[in-house]
Amino acid sequence: MSNPVLVDVQRGGVTESFHQGAFAVVDATGTVVHALGNIDRAIFPRSAVKVLQALPLITSGAADLFQLTDTELALACASHGGEPAHAATAAGMLAKAGVDATALGCGSHWPSHDRSSRELARSGGEPTALHNNCSGKHAGFVCLGCLLAREQGLDARGFLSGYVQPDHPVMQQVTHALATATSTDLRQAPVGVDGCSIPTFGMPLRQLALGFARVATGQGLSADHARAAARLRKAVAKAPFMVAGTDRFDTDVMAHFGERVFCKVGAEGVYCAALPELGWGVAIKMDDGNNARAVEVVMSHLLATWVARNEADHAVLAPRTTVHMRNWNGIEVGTLQPSAALRAATEA
Amino acid sequence: MSNPVLVDVQRGGVTESFHQGAFAVVDATGTVVHALGNIDRAIFPRSAVKVLQALPLITSGAADLFQLTDTELALACASHGGEPAHAATAAGMLAKAGVDATALGCGSHWPSHDRSSRELARSGGEPTALHNNCSGKHAGFVCLGCLLAREQGLDARGFLSGYVQPDHPVMQQVTHALATATSTDLRQAPVGVDGCSIPTFGMPLRQLALGFARVATGQGLSADHARAAARLRKAVAKAPFMVAGTDRFDTDVMAHFGERVFCKVGAEGVYCAALPELGWGVAIKMDDGNNARAVEVVMSHLLATWVARNEADHAVLAPRTTVHMRNWNGIEVGTLQPSAALRAATEA
Repeated sequence: MSNPVLVDVQRGGVTESFHQGAFAVVDATGTVVHALGNIDRAIFPRSAVKVLQALPLITSGAADLFQLTDTELALACASHGGEPAHAATAAGMLAKAGVDATALGCGSHWPSHDRSSRELARSGGEPTALHNNCSGKHAGFVCLGCLLAREQGLDARGFLSGYVQPDHPVMQQVTHALATATSTDLRQAPVGVDGCSIPTFGMPLRQLALGFARVATGQGLSADHARAAARLRKAVAKAPFMVAGTDRFDTDVMAHFGERVFCKVGAEGVYCAALPELGWGVAIKMDDGNNARAVEVVMSHLLATWVARNEADHAVLAPRTTVHMRNWNGIEVGTLQPSAALRAATEA
Repeated sequence: MSNPVLVDVQRGGVTESFHQGAFAVVDATGTVVHALGNIDRAIFPRSAVKVLQALPLITSGAADLFQLTDTELALACASHGGEPAHAATAAGMLAKAGVDATALGCGSHWPSHDRSSRELARSGGEPTALHNNCSGKHAGFVCLGCLLAREQGLDARGFLSGYVQPDHPVMQQVTHALATATSTDLRQAPVGVDGCSIPTFGMPLRQLALGFARVATGQGLSADHARAAARLRKAVAKAPFMVAGTDRFDTDVMAHFGERVFCKVGAEGVYCAALPELGWGVAIKMDDGNNARAVEVVMSHLLATWVARNEADHAVLAPRTTVHMRNWNGIEVGTLQPSAALRAATEA
């Protein structure tokens, strides 16, 4: 069941811990270009597929109807830190659709960005659903729902009730986009409930990577999905702060690479990327799923191997490929680094 | 290199992630009573051995000289949440030795207990070394150093300079206690720097578990180490809040079991326990080392199997052995639970 070691955690010159996992790199025809580990076991992609879940926001016409900006579209693809600009942007999306934060079905939590959380506390505030890392995605769902309600002459707030449920028209459109983009029959897939209460569907890394190769190229997508995917990629490249936040991998990497890389983290050790220059999609899942530290090293190593082409590119990726960990006194105590198996798999 | 799966992370009826690891259960003669995985590879025990590192605080006479209470001795064994009572207790220990928080060499960080961190921010405060999860252990080191300085007629502040370094007299005593309690030649061991800047020495789970069997029984320890270990166990049983904090495994489990269980978490997926009723020591290490979620399930399962004897015991452990995970809307989304391999290993 377990996959090869992809990342070593070194301390004192020895391996203290290690992270196992699998990855698939696939082109838009579905050909596996590179892979390591089991890429056929169904895994939950979690938040890594937000860009696919945002396709109906555009294809429905909701993004145009409510005149959503690139900044707002980037937030619709985000797992953000709940920083003030993230919360304000989500609020702005909802206002354009004529509703407010009470329409969001994602639940509330303190900002995951520590400083923003403390600043909110310092100011006497409490978190709302706007601070939930998924508030932008949900604001997009709400905009889609408001359009559908308007088309049917229904009250938006009534129509939106229960929009996170699998059988609601909003979630049906979202699931349909995910199924067609990845060529996966989600009616046969394992179904879980995600952190923000929408369904998450199990699918193999191979299919997930295919979906991102299609996002990268437009090939294999319907014409409207292809246009929507390109628009979302460009929006995130223009507003990378919105997709994650301060000192976050996705933001920092896309701020440098622009449209050359679209990458997105998901919970439980999932990472996906679309690489337009190569026409490839990437999907990674760490077995232990615990958090981002290991999967970021894998993604950084893959980008350094196949995407980086000059010193500036490597300068952005090097400290993320071999991560020098420091303690509370600033002393270097160890590193995270690609394993021998990962390096061998990418030398081929 | 990798060990058996010990914990399954379930979502939507399937395994979303899983955690591999090894454990050793050893009696005071060094006989392995139960084990799974590689128990001979050297691992860094990190904060799981704070009780062993606190032995010289007592055997030196420093705890008596400065009239440390059970509450303070419990904090010397702690990885606490930086809650107000933890920080105040550390400050009290330092005051008894005639110094203040500037003597601590552990570095500062915001309280790991989220609510305390926000309350500190709300009140306009900033964290000090007192909020570092290791401040109690370091306050114990400082008390030991103040005693040694006094014995040698030296200025305490000057003597304490660099006390976190391996060759400082304070750290030499701490390391000697660790080596003798575990019968490990630490001069031959891998050495890393811990999060709080003191050395951490690699040793096999087998030796680590032996050290805790000795803490449980006193057998195999010098008479003064045996008395000191018993005093520390009793201190933590009397003041379990000090060893961790609100909603923390160690605190909640020891608040229930009292002197029947001494357990202590360490960074990177390490857990140790002394079980006096059985005369056993336990040492666990998760391969991925990421955080506490998996290793707590393993420890809870081991305690439920071998220590629990009535409904009240099982009621404390059941929700920690199978952990029902809820999302931001309070919906149950999955479970953490002992793997088939772990269950099989403990049925033998």
